[in-house]
Amino acid sequence: MQGPNWDEGTAYEIKPPRHKAELVEVGRGTPMGELLRRYWHPVGLIADAEGTPRKIRALGEDLVLFRDGQGRAGLVHARCCHRGTTLYYGKVEKRGIRCCYHGWLFDAEGRCLEQPCEPEGGLFRAKVRQPWYPLAERYGLIFAYLGPPAKKPVLPRYECLEVMDDDEFVEADASSLGGGGPPIIPCNWLQHYENVVDPFHVPVLHAAFSGAQFTTAMAAMPHVTFEMSPRGVTVRSTRKLDDGKTLYRITEAAIPTLRVVPNPRVAQFARVESIGWVLPIDDTSFRIYVAGRVKQPGDLGRMRSTFNGKFWWDMSEEEHQRHPGDYEAQVGQGAITIHSEEHFAQSDRGIVMIRRVLQDQLEAIKAGRDPIGLIFDPDAPAVVFEAGNYIRAA
Amino acid sequence: MQGPNWDEGTAYEIKPPRHKAELVEVGRGTPMGELLRRYWHPVGLIADAEGTPRKIRALGEDLVLFRDGQGRAGLVHARCCHRGTTLYYGKVEKRGIRCCYHGWLFDAEGRCLEQPCEPEGGLFRAKVRQPWYPLAERYGLIFAYLGPPAKKPVLPRYECLEVMDDDEFVEADASSLGGGGPPIIPCNWLQHYENVVDPFHVPVLHAAFSGAQFTTAMAAMPHVTFEMSPRGVTVRSTRKLDDGKTLYRITEAAIPTLRVVPNPRVAQFARVESIGWVLPIDDTSFRIYVAGRVKQPGDLGRMRSTFNGKFWWDMSEEEHQRHPGDYEAQVGQGAITIHSEEHFAQSDRGIVMIRRVLQDQLEAIKAGRDPIGLIFDPDAPAVVFEAGNYIRAA
Amino acid sequence: MQGPNWDEGTAYEIKPPRHKAELVEVGRGTPMGELLRRYWHPVGLIADAEGTPRKIRALGEDLVLFRDGQGRAGLVHARCCHRGTTLYYGKVEKRGIRCCYHGWLFDAEGRCLEQPCEPEGGLFRAKVRQPWYPLAERYGLIFAYLGPPAKKPVLPRYECLEVMDDDEFVEADASSLGGGGPPIIPCNWLQHYENVVDPFHVPVLHAAFSGAQFTTAMAAMPHVTFEMSPRGVTVRSTRKLDDGKTLYRITEAAIPTLRVVPNPRVAQFARVESIGWVLPIDDTSFRIYVAGRVKQPGDLGRMRSTFNGKFWWDMSEEEHQRHPGDYEAQVGQGAITIHSEEHFAQSDRGIVMIRRVLQDQLEAIKAGRDPIGLIFDPDAPAVVFEAGNYIRAA
Repeated sequence: MQGPNWDEGTAYEIKPPRHKAELVEVGRGTPMGELLRRYWHPVGLIADAEGTPRKIRALGEDLVLFRDGQGRAGLVHARCCHRGTTLYYGKVEKRGIRCCYHGWLFDAEGRCLEQPCEPEGGLFRAKVRQPWYPLAERYGLIFAYLGPPAKKPVLPRYECLEVMDDDEFVEADASSLGGGGPPIIPCNWLQHYENVVDPFHVPVLHAAFSGAQFTTAMAAMPHVTFEMSPRGVTVRSTRKLDDGKTLYRITEAAIPTLRVVPNPRVAQFARVESIGWVLPIDDTSFRIYVAGRVKQPGDLGRMRSTFNGKFWWDMSEEEHQRHPGDYEAQVGQGAITIHSEEHFAQSDRGIVMIRRVLQDQLEAIKAGRDPIGLIFDPDAPAVVFEAGNYIRAA
Repeated sequence: MQGPNWDEGTAYEIKPPRHKAELVEVGRGTPMGELLRRYWHPVGLIADAEGTPRKIRALGEDLVLFRDGQGRAGLVHARCCHRGTTLYYGKVEKRGIRCCYHGWLFDAEGRCLEQPCEPEGGLFRAKVRQPWYPLAERYGLIFAYLGPPAKKPVLPRYECLEVMDDDEFVEADASSLGGGGPPIIPCNWLQHYENVVDPFHVPVLHAAFSGAQFTTAMAAMPHVTFEMSPRGVTVRSTRKLDDGKTLYRITEAAIPTLRVVPNPRVAQFARVESIGWVLPIDDTSFRIYVAGRVKQPGDLGRMRSTFNGKFWWDMSEEEHQRHPGDYEAQVGQGAITIHSEEHFAQSDRGIVMIRRVLQDQLEAIKAGRDPIGLIFDPDAPAVVFEAGNYIRAA
Repeated sequence: MQGPNWDEGTAYEIKPPRHKAELVEVGRGTPMGELLRRYWHPVGLIADAEGTPRKIRALGEDLVLFRDGQGRAGLVHARCCHRGTTLYYGKVEKRGIRCCYHGWLFDAEGRCLEQPCEPEGGLFRAKVRQPWYPLAERYGLIFAYLGPPAKKPVLPRYECLEVMDDDEFVEADASSLGGGGPPIIPCNWLQHYENVVDPFHVPVLHAAFSGAQFTTAMAAMPHVTFEMSPRGVTVRSTRKLDDGKTLYRITEAAIPTLRVVPNPRVAQFARVESIGWVLPIDDTSFRIYVAGRVKQPGDLGRMRSTFNGKFWWDMSEEEHQRHPGDYEAQVGQGAITIHSEEHFAQSDRGIVMIRRVLQDQLEAIKAGRDPIGLIFDPDAPAVVFEAGNYIRAA
């Protein structure tokens, strides 16, 4: 029997830690891994595919990216299908990539074109194929489709990156803008993705703790409504401004991993300027690719937060502790957060919703239905987001 | 059939390695973990609890230590009970610690005082509690109780730290004095704790190998008797001195992890000056906190062994190999020693006894009885040790 | 149903990775581990056994090598049989090695000679034995036998290291000559060993990719026949030379791990000059010991390939990527290659054969028969290899 003076709520009572594997793990054959594989994901900048093979890790798979002498980008399984040596040591030629070990030559779609150590250059070379993935280049990014071939959708177009002013153009960035840290962030992708539908952390983490990282307006606690959308979750925040007007800010999380977040520095009152794709590298790390409308080269990079003029990587451990940002908040949840220890409140409605949406898509796949957001019609119109910073009279 | 010329005793015959998990593993829910959790353990110096959150790892648990603006020390589960971000990035305020992510404020006992992102500051905040542990400050140290609340004992007082000369005071040290190496020692705690009841290694390891690290007297092989005590194991060593007198040295290991070891430099002939607590950080590392009577600040630190005037951390790998000490002997047993390969001899009686005492306490807990050494009466007298260096006429 | 426009051969179809454990894993009790333990393996240079204990890791076992004051080399289990401290911190004396912790003294065959902390120096010391392994010194190397004592064979003699010109002598090398990288190579031993019977990679990896590392002749694609031998696999390569003559090169892989490879720089047309032993350190690393006939001290080391005058360890990551060698090709297969993803071709016949030979020996052991290549007669003649570079009129 527990007496009145006993300590309550001590850590001794914590249950063994558990995470929801189906929501966070991304390997081939896992529920979320298969859901993510139904969509195109950026795996590099267009400039990353070049004459020198480049290591790519995406959804837990080790791949090699290159561009052959005819300009075709190729993304292949890192291990040569012959004897398993990594094609990272391969030589890129006009027609494809050649393995360093026995010289097998593969084209951008994995077809074996030459087997120089075999009689007559390889009479049976058509019987082997280097595992590969289809690519598409758009918005400065290289997108890959790692899913079941029969289910391959069209790579979507987005209105916010298609329709622009005369002095605007689209620029891409691979430095994990919005992640609050270095390009590769050592925790599960969902910890970051949930942050997208969490507008309440802004006045705490990005203002009270770190000084108003964004604008004065953003430092105020917003009034927020959350809503499921055909694309994912939409977050509408309103904040009263000093002049009596209202800042009306809409942020979207679009399945599978799109951050559709207007500039938190609220440089303009208009529809969203950029899209971020959260790429799960594996279960315990991710990176973010961004494409956005800009007027000057480098505009995207200039969105990166600094503290006292310092970039994240120039801050000391002590400065990181005193002035944490998204990187600290999310990596601080652990490599994979412990779902069994969470306690949700009303302000977490967006997170509850995005998990619900993801769960629903897992159910859809299990039931043989398509998850939301897939486009199969090449002539489909561009996707239009609601996201943006808007000003209202009251 | 084995012939007369066959090699005997080769390593080919070694059985697969096994360790006694119940004696060494310290996690919550393990036998030894639960035994250790029935006692108070030091987790820091009093000065370690301050306005900047500090990471603490003890018995395999990740915790955060702080001192609020009212001077109360708090020790909480590192993960915020809301969304799991570590409170290491929290801000310490007058009333408690505030999480960086959504600003929940917790007092030193984990009560949630504010939820700034919630309507009306959190109408349901009483429903959550940040997992915490009770603390007590004494002898320059902060002690924590990580066990079942209903079983919480009184933090014991020790005569050797309570009764002192006019010019003495108690000082604490967190540098793992007695461990023979750096503050954090990368092997299981029991490997060190067993060393406490092993007086025979002194003339070998600390004299023949490393030059007489202690005194000439200590370099002689002692005559030793071992005895179970109400507190653990008592070791009585006698050594003949050059002047015909006898050095009579008593060392104690007191359950659960107390090193009650008189100064091996035998600076005085008197009762023990200090107590060391071996804190298991986790299964494969530990540290030692010490509190002792001194006359000058820093006296404890001056007990640290040096070799040719060098501290352990200033010695080269070659010097460590030639002049090993306790760190090398114990870390050299592996991260967790292999019990299945041990061969005890008569001089190992103390180790056999301390394991027996520990096993007996595991049995006691299993049977629903209290292990030895627990005090539940706040007015109980201070614990008196026999330990000390004494001189006898013959 | 798969339609005509679907992508074929994508990496989405790759089966879960598997390796053939019985071929690659070397621990005691594993099939290959037991096969390898039926043979002598070099574990160091003769000079490596000296008065300072040296850590040795072989076939996944941690051992300590020393030479006592009487000149006898000893190889013992690293953990002292008393309390498990590593004998790396031991002191080497005239009669053996003494543990730092309690001073037990062991001779080169593990007999316990002294227990200084025990009454009368240890009345029962004959009851313990430090696990040890028999050694033999030859060709500048120390060979150890880690297998079942009843099966211990004779350490073979090799004609190529026994019969030599007046100005020749045998030299040994421990720098993993032939491995194409540093002394310790972080991948499974079999990946390297298979490379020995793979003559086709030479004109690709060692010529087309890295510039003719060897000679112009070696850069030509050879005509090759493979053959099982009483010792393992023999590879015969012929290449037409510019002068109309034929370079006839024979390479052998001799069970268990011998590389019998004539100098690829083809300095002379004669029988093989050296033998390399591939020592599995554990499942995911190996090293190579070499002994060979030379005329000048250091001749073996001068066989090491350089690129643009640089040794492997002086090359940048970019240079390694552009000019890969055996190290890159084999470590590039992964810590343990994935056998389930291999696709063999005709030029891989040697690899298929060496795996067959190894499998046959695993079967032999399972059936209670001796594997090939074991010699039990101390007066057996030296092993003669066919290997060499020879010149033929046509």
